[in-house]
Amino acid sequence: MATDCIFCKIVAGEIPAEKVAETDTTLAFRDINPKAPLHVLVIPKVHHPDAASLASAEPQIAAEVLSQAGVVARQEGYEDYNLVFNTGAGAGQTVFHAHVHVLGGLDASKLFLA
Amino acid sequence: MATDCIFCKIVAGEIPAEKVAETDTTLAFRDINPKAPLHVLVIPKVHHPDAASLASAEPQIAAEVLSQAGVVARQEGYEDYNLVFNTGAGAGQTVFHAHVHVLGGLDASKLFLA
Repeated sequence: MATDCIFCKIVAGEIPAEKVAETDTTLAFRDINPKAPLHVLVIPKVHHPDAASLASAEPQIAAEVLSQAGVVARQEGYEDYNLVFNTGAGAGQTVFHAHVHVLGGLDASKLFLA
Repeated sequence: MATDCIFCKIVAGEIPAEKVAETDTTLAFRDINPKAPLHVLVIPKVHHPDAASLASAEPQIAAEVLSQAGVVARQEGYEDYNLVFNTGAGAGQTVFHAHVHVLGGLDASKLFLA
């Protein structure tokens, strides 16, 4: 656990979150400021600063984060969904504990990659 | 290799692409219709329709895709970058071979998750 990491504190139960799924190595909870009808974060319980460093250090857990993202989307009723990892403050990362945004029902205008 | 999959054909060398990195299990090449100053796709060489199914079936390769996304971003000069996986036509997926969009220098207005 990293000192002063809000996501480590959610994992430890020290800060509340609206959990939607949990595995031995991952936790999924709703974003407190949702940007889409479905906006859940899936995080590894172990602390790594971003997705690539998680994947390099703990490949099995990184894969579990991705597969759980799909599980959560379908559980919430979305077969079609977007997964976004932001790395670095300049790219919009605000919590430096790896996490994926699971987005469902995103407005078409946001699908700039389509 | 999946029949009629454009990314499988790129892996096989049957369709050209501007490659920027390659490992035993992954390939990275520039998006032909870039939406940001840096817009590279990292794909597994093996065919899986989307990120979650890749992660469930081949966790090591899914993690390699994520870690290579970071390698490519830094190689291209971006410490801050965004990774996007679209799953399903309704979420903007147009090629049904798992791939991550690696985006650098994205306009701030696109960083709707910040």
